[in-house]
Amino acid sequence: MKKAIILFSGGLDSTTCVAIAKEQGFIPYALSFRYGQKHEIELEQGKKIARAAGVVEHKILDLPLNAIGGSALTDTAIAVQDYAGDGNIPATYVPARNIIFLSFALSWGEVIGAHNIFIGANFIDYSGYPDCRPDFLRSFEQMAALGTKVGVEESKFTIHAPLLMLSKAEIVREGARLGVDYSQTLSCYRPDSDARACGTCDSCVLRKKGFAEANIADPTRYY
Amino acid sequence: MKKAIILFSGGLDSTTCVAIAKEQGFIPYALSFRYGQKHEIELEQGKKIARAAGVVEHKILDLPLNAIGGSALTDTAIAVQDYAGDGNIPATYVPARNIIFLSFALSWGEVIGAHNIFIGANFIDYSGYPDCRPDFLRSFEQMAALGTKVGVEESKFTIHAPLLMLSKAEIVREGARLGVDYSQTLSCYRPDSDARACGTCDSCVLRKKGFAEANIADPTRYY
Repeated sequence: MKKAIILFSGGLDSTTCVAIAKEQGFIPYALSFRYGQKHEIELEQGKKIARAAGVVEHKILDLPLNAIGGSALTDTAIAVQDYAGDGNIPATYVPARNIIFLSFALSWGEVIGAHNIFIGANFIDYSGYPDCRPDFLRSFEQMAALGTKVGVEESKFTIHAPLLMLSKAEIVREGARLGVDYSQTLSCYRPDSDARACGTCDSCVLRKKGFAEANIADPTRYY
Repeated sequence: MKKAIILFSGGLDSTTCVAIAKEQGFIPYALSFRYGQKHEIELEQGKKIARAAGVVEHKILDLPLNAIGGSALTDTAIAVQDYAGDGNIPATYVPARNIIFLSFALSWGEVIGAHNIFIGANFIDYSGYPDCRPDFLRSFEQMAALGTKVGVEESKFTIHAPLLMLSKAEIVREGARLGVDYSQTLSCYRPDSDARACGTCDSCVLRKKGFAEANIADPTRYY
């Protein structure tokens, strides 16, 4: 059995990714980040979920993305808005976030010998973030083959994005089939201190739509 | 005039890069990292150099690479060895370090509108690190064009590696021409608490060779 690192926020997508990696026979290692996100409470939910899912190790790294700012998720001067769906990249985009997160996965993967990395990026029901697109992920994989010791000396890193071309409804159905308990997952960008969701931010709207279209009861607690 | 971010350690190469970026007409922003390196004292030297070089802003970010380990530079269980020059990737390789550093440069670059990034990577007198090779840097630039908002909406990021194909002697001569004061720069992987160099680690040996071959007096303080 091979080790896999799953980029893990404690939300709907990455929790589904953990279940998929396990079903595919990988030994799951979860990697989360405390990056100054206003919705840091997602990490508390994530800890419970990772424990219940039986991940071998759940590493939470501190990254100073709030020292860089430029996003509604990390910058107190920029508010998280309701879902617009106007085709523009929303203010919740965190500059280079997935590039940074994947880079740390490469680093940890080199050390523990995990050459498979899972990311819950989605290109269908998504917010238009450039770092969720198929071309980007393919390009990142090529770059990793050239820029790491693993790529040079051993097997290459493989970036798995099993949700990439699924709708949110299909993701929810896949998770339900795998027994994922979505009541613990937190997707909201502006949850309250009790980890309840707003219901109207980008992330909430896409998630709600997923449960509705999948005809599965939405277990999310809204405030 | 355009802004440029220079990945800046306070060593010989990145200090030369600052001078080159300035000569090329860029407004210099320096980016350093406190990543658990044993030779963290390089940052104190770096602060003085950045101030003297007139960089507009010198940002130092904390990254938990020591929580990942796997390198003689960050892991107290792995010693920094003398230069071997046997063609193998040495234990001082930090897994995915340049990928991570460049990723943060993209992030900061998106926020401040700096789409030019300088890195002092060298492919001639170097330690065999995979993340210093031309193919990697080209590939990183392509990845950045696909995975960032800048790449999608505006101009692409350009990764400048002006030292890539220079010998250490040529780098030193170029720096001397540009008036770089190398007495302040610290390249050593195991300096003492007075920022003096060991003279025998990979980085010291390559640096020494550079001054010798350039016929320029080596101003490095050794212990």
